[in-house]
Amino acid sequence: MTDPSDARTAASPTDILGASVIGGRSVRGGDGEIAAIDPRTGVELEPSVGLIGSEELDRAASLAAEAFSRFRATTPLQRAALLESIAKNLEAIAEVLADRVVLETGLPRVRAVSETGRTTGQLRLFADVLREGVFHDARIDRAQPDRSPVPRADIRLRKIALGPVAVFGASNFPLAFSVAGGDTASALAAGCPVIVKAHGAHPGTSELVGRAIADAVAANGLHPGVFALVFGRGEQIGKRLVEHPAIAAVGFTGSRRGGSALVQAAARRAVPIPVYAEMSSINPVFLLPSVLADADALAASWIGSLTLGAGQFCTNPGLVFVPAGDAANTFIASAGRRVSAAPDATMLTPGIAAAYADATAKLSRTDGVTTVAEGEADDEIAHSGTPQIFAVDASTFLSETALQEEVFGAAGIIVTVRDVGQMIEILKGLEGQLTVTIHGDQTDEGVSQLIATAEERAGRILFNGWPTGVEVGHAMVHGGPYPATSDPRATSVGSLAIDRFLRPVSYQSFPAELLPEPVLDANPWQVWRQIDGTPGKV
Amino acid sequence: MTDPSDARTAASPTDILGASVIGGRSVRGGDGEIAAIDPRTGVELEPSVGLIGSEELDRAASLAAEAFSRFRATTPLQRAALLESIAKNLEAIAEVLADRVVLETGLPRVRAVSETGRTTGQLRLFADVLREGVFHDARIDRAQPDRSPVPRADIRLRKIALGPVAVFGASNFPLAFSVAGGDTASALAAGCPVIVKAHGAHPGTSELVGRAIADAVAANGLHPGVFALVFGRGEQIGKRLVEHPAIAAVGFTGSRRGGSALVQAAARRAVPIPVYAEMSSINPVFLLPSVLADADALAASWIGSLTLGAGQFCTNPGLVFVPAGDAANTFIASAGRRVSAAPDATMLTPGIAAAYADATAKLSRTDGVTTVAEGEADDEIAHSGTPQIFAVDASTFLSETALQEEVFGAAGIIVTVRDVGQMIEILKGLEGQLTVTIHGDQTDEGVSQLIATAEERAGRILFNGWPTGVEVGHAMVHGGPYPATSDPRATSVGSLAIDRFLRPVSYQSFPAELLPEPVLDANPWQVWRQIDGTPGKV
Repeated sequence: MTDPSDARTAASPTDILGASVIGGRSVRGGDGEIAAIDPRTGVELEPSVGLIGSEELDRAASLAAEAFSRFRATTPLQRAALLESIAKNLEAIAEVLADRVVLETGLPRVRAVSETGRTTGQLRLFADVLREGVFHDARIDRAQPDRSPVPRADIRLRKIALGPVAVFGASNFPLAFSVAGGDTASALAAGCPVIVKAHGAHPGTSELVGRAIADAVAANGLHPGVFALVFGRGEQIGKRLVEHPAIAAVGFTGSRRGGSALVQAAARRAVPIPVYAEMSSINPVFLLPSVLADADALAASWIGSLTLGAGQFCTNPGLVFVPAGDAANTFIASAGRRVSAAPDATMLTPGIAAAYADATAKLSRTDGVTTVAEGEADDEIAHSGTPQIFAVDASTFLSETALQEEVFGAAGIIVTVRDVGQMIEILKGLEGQLTVTIHGDQTDEGVSQLIATAEERAGRILFNGWPTGVEVGHAMVHGGPYPATSDPRATSVGSLAIDRFLRPVSYQSFPAELLPEPVLDANPWQVWRQIDGTPGKV
Repeated sequence: MTDPSDARTAASPTDILGASVIGGRSVRGGDGEIAAIDPRTGVELEPSVGLIGSEELDRAASLAAEAFSRFRATTPLQRAALLESIAKNLEAIAEVLADRVVLETGLPRVRAVSETGRTTGQLRLFADVLREGVFHDARIDRAQPDRSPVPRADIRLRKIALGPVAVFGASNFPLAFSVAGGDTASALAAGCPVIVKAHGAHPGTSELVGRAIADAVAANGLHPGVFALVFGRGEQIGKRLVEHPAIAAVGFTGSRRGGSALVQAAARRAVPIPVYAEMSSINPVFLLPSVLADADALAASWIGSLTLGAGQFCTNPGLVFVPAGDAANTFIASAGRRVSAAPDATMLTPGIAAAYADATAKLSRTDGVTTVAEGEADDEIAHSGTPQIFAVDASTFLSETALQEEVFGAAGIIVTVRDVGQMIEILKGLEGQLTVTIHGDQTDEGVSQLIATAEERAGRILFNGWPTGVEVGHAMVHGGPYPATSDPRATSVGSLAIDRFLRPVSYQSFPAELLPEPVLDANPWQVWRQIDGTPGKV
């Protein structure tokens, strides 16, 4: 292929070209190449990916800026149709997509299939959000011409799209937190063009999804700048994307180091912009006295959650607190037996497998840390991680701050503590978390105070369950205080995620003919709104 | 007075001690002194103010941290009662307060009285917001135990307070944007303790208000760490406050330089925090063809808005665009006559008066800028500013970026342009604004595109009015893209301001006994909420 601009017409939706998608067309960059690796075999996958340079990145950003005004002015129903088109396009290539996910990530096929469902469900959730219309936050303060000493003007408010959004996909959810993931779905729903910087670990998957989105954009008659997918070096193209004047906000899922670098870069801009980075969490679990009789069953369900997907979840429950005593011993022994029997698992990338091996080796060498059990290594897998669990007492945990760092993978630490009071003290000192899990009930002494402390430390608190498996709904918060995320006011999963990409605008004394629909007297879109501070669908 | 901790019992609500308020008590700092100046006479006012050092600042922050958990757990009705107590305490000292405002700011007494009403009205608005309960953003996603392939858990969401908030008051609204202003009212409403760094221009006013708040905190049986007022050097105490680990968010109204410095300091923290800084805006006004027959009347109302309060409003309309021609000439001539007749006005501080004199002198010397008229100086006033207006053509305006910088005071620039198309082009290139004002109607060609452009440049758009006089209501946005504010997702005026100081938390599979009230099945507080995505008061 000599002319990259021909790529789109040439390619079927299931072809992988190793190309970015800019302006609705495939563009194979010429600034170096990368290749994905099958982590099960260690073999490089075809085709290689051509990385774009600054010029192509700037073109994608300019197109997004150009597309913005018209895209944000589309009706919510038009954007709902776009999201549903994307979902349908993904479903049409679901088999090829699942195959490629398995190749590039080593995740089991059943997971690839379920993640496709989650991704399309997420797109359709935002279509529902657009139809319901709460997101407009429409408000009307009626004029009071006779108010004394001065009359009150008619003032109305609605929220509009913030501007083009840069999205950095995660390694661990090649679909649901990647090219067509929650950040993209919520930004498009808000009316923001999106530029996705693809994760290098699953480029073929990214390209298939990226073209599915671009095709939906075209089929819905929208400006081709509404969506772009770019492959490029993070320190060059990623940074340039965040610094580009056209970009108004950033969504990121990944490491603490990577997220913090974007936060800093965004704050240093001439016009600072918000960064929603989901980064690091160890998701502490507290076992309260009322459940300790079930220590064996709890150990079984914990190990199930800990080892799910080779432990490669942001909400992986890596830390369990249990009151010292017989039940704790039962819990530790039972968890140990199950880990010993747990299979070695393929990790997402060679780098992640190596980091996991380093971190667990470091844990096992730490003074006061007992290695409880380790799964058996499987030499057939090129880049794997064996589940491992460790035990420490509270004083060791408190003195070794390294024990509070996230280990990405199926490593768990059991901390034996004195009582619930000590749990609360320790939780107060932990960094911000995505989740806190409590096993217990209302009869446990101190549980209310533990919950209150958890509210200040985490975005989501669970009872008698496990934090892996994040529901995509209206009441979900996938967020939390730093470093769980860079902005505790936001969630990256669930319908509230749209609020990250909106800003309010007031309309004072407007002629009715010039008002936007959500604040027209007749309420033609039938949105929920506040009239003089009273909520209703009027 | 030898023991500063006795100050509170010793002082009546109308005494001014030159002291900070920490832990519910007056604390006269020993780290240097400042004195306010009566800008009408140039005379230093008694008493001097004792500035606090780092140790006292840290104590205020520690007390706020200590107060946080209990304060955020108060019911909305308890916080409504606090806000109403503060309003009553201010009303009880209204006469003394107004006298002191006049002394310290040179503002007319009628303004001091009306601003007291605005401040108490603002406190009561947030009491209403607390009673209505929309701010909880309560959501319930009901369990689906039979869902396939996996059941859905019961998940509920509400918003909680972010943490202690640092507030930096403005010079130009000694009451409504200062110690008990919108930032403080909305943060307290959210359940966040507040530490106000007082503005040095009106310390006596600040102290009276600060003690009114502290007294209300005590009378409502709340922890004394819920509120503090500190006097200290900005570069030392202000910076330390923003950097203090106990502080979770910052509200600021002031200069672009000051606000940007806080934004940078907050981003460099180990745990970055949001800064809501309202900074700089020139509030462009566009006169469209349909209104040009009223050029004379428009000039009169413009000069009224421009010179109100010596032009010392963030929403002062400093820039008027008018199509070149006879009507523009009438407008300029009429505005000029009125400015020549406008009285010299006292400015807030010697520094503001000097900066205004510098900026207007620079404008008058700029190539292509015509000085249309200037008010008459009044040598009786020590620190005054004469209203001044200037005229330029579009090409001069576009080539001289200095013409786009805010001049704080009653200086206005009239820009003659070709047509509405050129207005739109110019508006696209302007920095972010608090307001854009349009005089015209739906018959003006290009008006829809002008509005669409204004939406992307400003937080509020007005028709056929003037932007000074910001209503405190539910639909008000006092915000906008950078540098109008540091965060266009927020407003610092109106009920939506509470959202700045809240964050969402999810509760998954909670025992009913342990759920917070806004998401209890019975909805005991009768808050508006979403059940499975459907809004209602159920």
